[in-house]
Amino acid sequence: MAVTPTSAELDRLRIEVPSWAYGNSGTRFRVFGTPGTPRDPFEKVADAAQVHAHTGLAPTVALHIPWDLVDDWGALRRHAEDLGVALGTINSNTFQDDDYKLGSLTHVEPRIRRKAIDHHLQCIDVMRQTGSRDLKVWLADGTNYPGQDSIRERQDRLAESLAEIYAALDDDHRMVLEYKFFEPAFYHTDIPDWGTSYVHCAALGEQAKVVLDTGHHAPGTNIEFIVAQLLRLGKLGAFDFNSRFYADDDLMVGAADPFQLFRIVVELIAGGGYGDPDVQLVLDQCHNIEAKVPGQIRSVLNVQEAVAKALSLDTAALDAARRAGDVLLANEVLMDAYATDVRPLLAEHRASKGLPEDPMRAFLASGYLERIAEERQGGVQAGWGA
Amino acid sequence: MAVTPTSAELDRLRIEVPSWAYGNSGTRFRVFGTPGTPRDPFEKVADAAQVHAHTGLAPTVALHIPWDLVDDWGALRRHAEDLGVALGTINSNTFQDDDYKLGSLTHVEPRIRRKAIDHHLQCIDVMRQTGSRDLKVWLADGTNYPGQDSIRERQDRLAESLAEIYAALDDDHRMVLEYKFFEPAFYHTDIPDWGTSYVHCAALGEQAKVVLDTGHHAPGTNIEFIVAQLLRLGKLGAFDFNSRFYADDDLMVGAADPFQLFRIVVELIAGGGYGDPDVQLVLDQCHNIEAKVPGQIRSVLNVQEAVAKALSLDTAALDAARRAGDVLLANEVLMDAYATDVRPLLAEHRASKGLPEDPMRAFLASGYLERIAEERQGGVQAGWGA
Amino acid sequence: MAVTPTSAELDRLRIEVPSWAYGNSGTRFRVFGTPGTPRDPFEKVADAAQVHAHTGLAPTVALHIPWDLVDDWGALRRHAEDLGVALGTINSNTFQDDDYKLGSLTHVEPRIRRKAIDHHLQCIDVMRQTGSRDLKVWLADGTNYPGQDSIRERQDRLAESLAEIYAALDDDHRMVLEYKFFEPAFYHTDIPDWGTSYVHCAALGEQAKVVLDTGHHAPGTNIEFIVAQLLRLGKLGAFDFNSRFYADDDLMVGAADPFQLFRIVVELIAGGGYGDPDVQLVLDQCHNIEAKVPGQIRSVLNVQEAVAKALSLDTAALDAARRAGDVLLANEVLMDAYATDVRPLLAEHRASKGLPEDPMRAFLASGYLERIAEERQGGVQAGWGA
Amino acid sequence: MAVTPTSAELDRLRIEVPSWAYGNSGTRFRVFGTPGTPRDPFEKVADAAQVHAHTGLAPTVALHIPWDLVDDWGALRRHAEDLGVALGTINSNTFQDDDYKLGSLTHVEPRIRRKAIDHHLQCIDVMRQTGSRDLKVWLADGTNYPGQDSIRERQDRLAESLAEIYAALDDDHRMVLEYKFFEPAFYHTDIPDWGTSYVHCAALGEQAKVVLDTGHHAPGTNIEFIVAQLLRLGKLGAFDFNSRFYADDDLMVGAADPFQLFRIVVELIAGGGYGDPDVQLVLDQCHNIEAKVPGQIRSVLNVQEAVAKALSLDTAALDAARRAGDVLLANEVLMDAYATDVRPLLAEHRASKGLPEDPMRAFLASGYLERIAEERQGGVQAGWGA
Repeated sequence: MAVTPTSAELDRLRIEVPSWAYGNSGTRFRVFGTPGTPRDPFEKVADAAQVHAHTGLAPTVALHIPWDLVDDWGALRRHAEDLGVALGTINSNTFQDDDYKLGSLTHVEPRIRRKAIDHHLQCIDVMRQTGSRDLKVWLADGTNYPGQDSIRERQDRLAESLAEIYAALDDDHRMVLEYKFFEPAFYHTDIPDWGTSYVHCAALGEQAKVVLDTGHHAPGTNIEFIVAQLLRLGKLGAFDFNSRFYADDDLMVGAADPFQLFRIVVELIAGGGYGDPDVQLVLDQCHNIEAKVPGQIRSVLNVQEAVAKALSLDTAALDAARRAGDVLLANEVLMDAYATDVRPLLAEHRASKGLPEDPMRAFLASGYLERIAEERQGGVQAGWGA
Repeated sequence: MAVTPTSAELDRLRIEVPSWAYGNSGTRFRVFGTPGTPRDPFEKVADAAQVHAHTGLAPTVALHIPWDLVDDWGALRRHAEDLGVALGTINSNTFQDDDYKLGSLTHVEPRIRRKAIDHHLQCIDVMRQTGSRDLKVWLADGTNYPGQDSIRERQDRLAESLAEIYAALDDDHRMVLEYKFFEPAFYHTDIPDWGTSYVHCAALGEQAKVVLDTGHHAPGTNIEFIVAQLLRLGKLGAFDFNSRFYADDDLMVGAADPFQLFRIVVELIAGGGYGDPDVQLVLDQCHNIEAKVPGQIRSVLNVQEAVAKALSLDTAALDAARRAGDVLLANEVLMDAYATDVRPLLAEHRASKGLPEDPMRAFLASGYLERIAEERQGGVQAGWGA
Repeated sequence: MAVTPTSAELDRLRIEVPSWAYGNSGTRFRVFGTPGTPRDPFEKVADAAQVHAHTGLAPTVALHIPWDLVDDWGALRRHAEDLGVALGTINSNTFQDDDYKLGSLTHVEPRIRRKAIDHHLQCIDVMRQTGSRDLKVWLADGTNYPGQDSIRERQDRLAESLAEIYAALDDDHRMVLEYKFFEPAFYHTDIPDWGTSYVHCAALGEQAKVVLDTGHHAPGTNIEFIVAQLLRLGKLGAFDFNSRFYADDDLMVGAADPFQLFRIVVELIAGGGYGDPDVQLVLDQCHNIEAKVPGQIRSVLNVQEAVAKALSLDTAALDAARRAGDVLLANEVLMDAYATDVRPLLAEHRASKGLPEDPMRAFLASGYLERIAEERQGGVQAGWGA
Repeated sequence: MAVTPTSAELDRLRIEVPSWAYGNSGTRFRVFGTPGTPRDPFEKVADAAQVHAHTGLAPTVALHIPWDLVDDWGALRRHAEDLGVALGTINSNTFQDDDYKLGSLTHVEPRIRRKAIDHHLQCIDVMRQTGSRDLKVWLADGTNYPGQDSIRERQDRLAESLAEIYAALDDDHRMVLEYKFFEPAFYHTDIPDWGTSYVHCAALGEQAKVVLDTGHHAPGTNIEFIVAQLLRLGKLGAFDFNSRFYADDDLMVGAADPFQLFRIVVELIAGGGYGDPDVQLVLDQCHNIEAKVPGQIRSVLNVQEAVAKALSLDTAALDAARRAGDVLLANEVLMDAYATDVRPLLAEHRASKGLPEDPMRAFLASGYLERIAEERQGGVQAGWGA
């Protein structure tokens, strides 16, 4: 029953890739290094550009401040443009300074809240230089022990801090506010769920939107429901894509539960969010043990396959089955789209755009990995600096 | 460091008990009957009155429509008053009619939504007769299979249905809207989390509030955070108390994780919700294998102990430790209140009110259970009618 | 890279269907009835035979005692054979008698353990009449409240009870022992995990094997690991197939996470369990809202598709990638098999066996559902009798 | 109904503390340092000795190889003895070398398995020098992606590797084998549950026992059941104590769910494991944000309080209630022990042994923290070296 997506529909897919995915990441037990790992933002952007060059899907690169601070933003911007990509979302970081041990925007001490707010004002300044639209705020804030701090007062301080940052945005800026179930805080997290992010965004105004990271939910959470709800409320600003079996595992998107990714994309399309620049699709993953650039290529391809399957859905048949209350048929119509092997269609689509039919094989054959392993000797490999 | 709660503080505790806890309940595998189980609402109210008579904590009884429909509401009301209690919240039920197999207020068919709305209008009518303030809406609505129905359209239909019911409320009525993670729907639930209940209540207006059932969350959810957040937003209308190890186990409140119950009450007090009639405390449990009236007595006593411990908290010391950033001390101050054995204080408090020091022993010695087992022969024992 | 399964490989698939799936089932909130629901074991077997007639995959029917007790076992056996199927596993039931409220084989009272053991001896007697090989033991035993009973003593009583039942088995009989994380017990379950089932089976002897029900695990459990481990230990006796998003939802197998089902089958094949009559594949599901016979057809087809995908795996390429430590390539080889659309192959395979290419459409067009809805008037529809 | 534990019963408590708890630890996001953090094993042992000096509960210190490698084991041993403690369990480490990126004892390459086995043989050598009895094996081994490696073959390689290590043990040595649900592996872990650890230990022999880390289970797992089962099987070798709300949070034991800790100790006592030197109690925690030595003191006190409560249990009353099938009474007897405030009793007990009544206040008043902050300038603070 599946229908065939048009080329125009497939063309609307845009995925932002994160600069930090090309640096080293790991667990608290170990961060493994790899030959060729970038040592600065310029090399990260170069790696990111490879993903776009081979897939045509990843035209922008998200930056993380201070990890990606450079002296000359114009140079980084031109570097990106020369490589065929653009700079994207600016991510703030208030979890790697000793001052933030017990919180940042929610901290009980005004001095530390001030510092954290100022960091965000600095990020907004960077946005003006990079031409970025979105300031992404993910907070590690929370507590580890019952009683440690006042849950309620931290909410009030959070609201106050966010309001000051929001007021500093330009008119064409957005603040996108991420929630996370737990980690690195292990008792309570100050923005633990979509509801909390939503009520803060609603209080801030139109330029504030919720970020849904697919790895940031309690076990069993129906993520596509949240997608549908936030689209309905006009408050879904961005996705952070990755996948998980347990906690915030940060595996490649689609690796753990490809059917879930498909269902998420189905709701994204149904709610009008697909292809809407106001609903940004971003990767946020950790390639702890797998090769990084190939890991990113696999990830954008996984999203593309999910999109192609979701676009194959026979929505008229689905609607009819739903109206008839035919549970099995409605499920079958959905599964029919999911069961469709869209890879031949996508290979053809790529060829029609002058892209390699098999981006992974093409990239591996390009010699890029060998080249960077040889060229990037010395220096300090980029990482989270934990 | 713990402080001693005053009698006046302890006196502010009021817990509503549910009529259906005195009838039979069970699992999908088996509902076990017990001698003496009530056969009608009058007998349920009589059992409920025993809880209040022995504890002084449970002055009102929640009713469930249609389970508790009677011909003469005045008679039921007077019956309750004669026994020292009053009728409380009216609970609607749209999960036990064949028409509701695929939904009620969210159903794709207008006819069935109409029927479900009308049922709620009938409940509002009952409220006028019972003198109840609150209409509690818990929906079993959801789907079992991906694709079965449109998540998004069901939200829109839900909003529309709720709006019609809300419009029918009297000025002194409230609609309290419950959320639940899953069950009986196993793929998606139409009101699965506090965020969804909140956005509907916010859209409806001041008379709509969220109900937090302590058993209705994903594993690991920090429930006291939600308490703090909803109190901050002015939208916490009521609790449904029970406890759980796994899913919605509906065990006696405080049985599975007494420390969690304590933390919940701490946030309730901190946020100004304790003793506030606008934040109703209600039991909602299933005494599948334990004796029912004693199970209810144990439950209200568990809440009372948690309240007494929470009132023992040295909030000045806690605040000082928090301001100093002393994680261990702040935690210790909280644990100190929790570790306090409040049972002697509560026994004394009860004695001062003319109540039995040990309500459980007093009730068991009263012969009530033996009397109802003998008197309530014949007829059909009340239950969920699943 | 995927390879094409041979017809002979596909032919090794056999799935046992459960008699109780054709009767009514539901949740504690409601059991919805359907026109045409069987009223006795003969009608259940007739429905089950439809599944086999249209798919060629379900040659045996599991029975549940006492639900399926009949006076004349020879008649039921011949009835089944006339319809092209055979009677299969005998399931005991010690959860629906008032005596079992606090346990059965683990009960503190010898009288009740005796009764539960005797029930199993009766089941073994039935096996002799039905020609069944397997006695399946799933226990609802457990406790709801900490302290309620001794976890340790219940283990010892369980071991003793099982030993007596095991001793009564004929040489060609097996006892297959199921574990379950929780429900209907909500604090502790006496056989909660594979480890517990395994240690009892190991103590009993060669004729005792573990049953893995795919819905009976904690959130996040890697089920294919357990499959691999039990096959390695020679102790995997049977599967109970179904699927879940939350708890023991008992949805159609493959509905919630088709990729997980695929991974399970991959391990089944890798460990030599596929096609081995000693590793029985059985459905155990509840069609609460969907049509029952079609629900069973969909389920066996879901398993067949997972098997065909798993048989498509290029194991040589996989092995090479693993030996090279190429994480992404090994994953890609696996995903390649999963992404393959095996439906055309299976349609062809069916046609070659004289089966309908699309079993679901063929069944729906057969008029069977309409016929039973008309014929099966009056009487009491079969169900769990909760 | 609670009874009063005797001094002799309380005296049987011994808790081993881990050297690495005094060094820095954190999350993948950040490791926060603290003034005074030890820079070598001698300073770690000195800190550990403070815990014992103030509580009398922690007479031994576990070491981690290679973190705690020293040139002169005799010197470290004497250093410990001078401070009133002894060296305890030796922990191996096969997760911080680049070679172990894809596994250690389970690795597909024989060379890396050899290296990992040799590391354990080195650890056994250390045991001979430190006089340790236990070799604790926790493996980070597992995979992140489906297909990455063969689950089954890794089990076989694991069994082979463990057998070689086991064969090298002296007669008075033990191998204690830990399991963990997930992390740092995010798809499958090679020893994910007690069942897997048990089957390997059973195959190895009498000197192999299971380690139960209280933070290493799936959500909702009934840990006290596993305690009871392993004691029954004679295979519980040691505990790693900590607590958690979400994943392996490694919070202070008793901090997240003190009632669970109590239930665990109740089963430990009931099964004869309390005070048995063959069931070792060890802390394994991360003091990410709280002070480390005080965090350890709080932890051993939390265990002591749980033990005192569990020893307060009126087992005769409990047994009678269980035999009578009185669910509520049995639960009440247990809760009565839990509700008892044992702190006065423990203060008295400490005083009778010449220990400070309030170990935490005594330690904080001792000036030790100020002294080490001043003395331990320069050098590299100990940590996990991730």
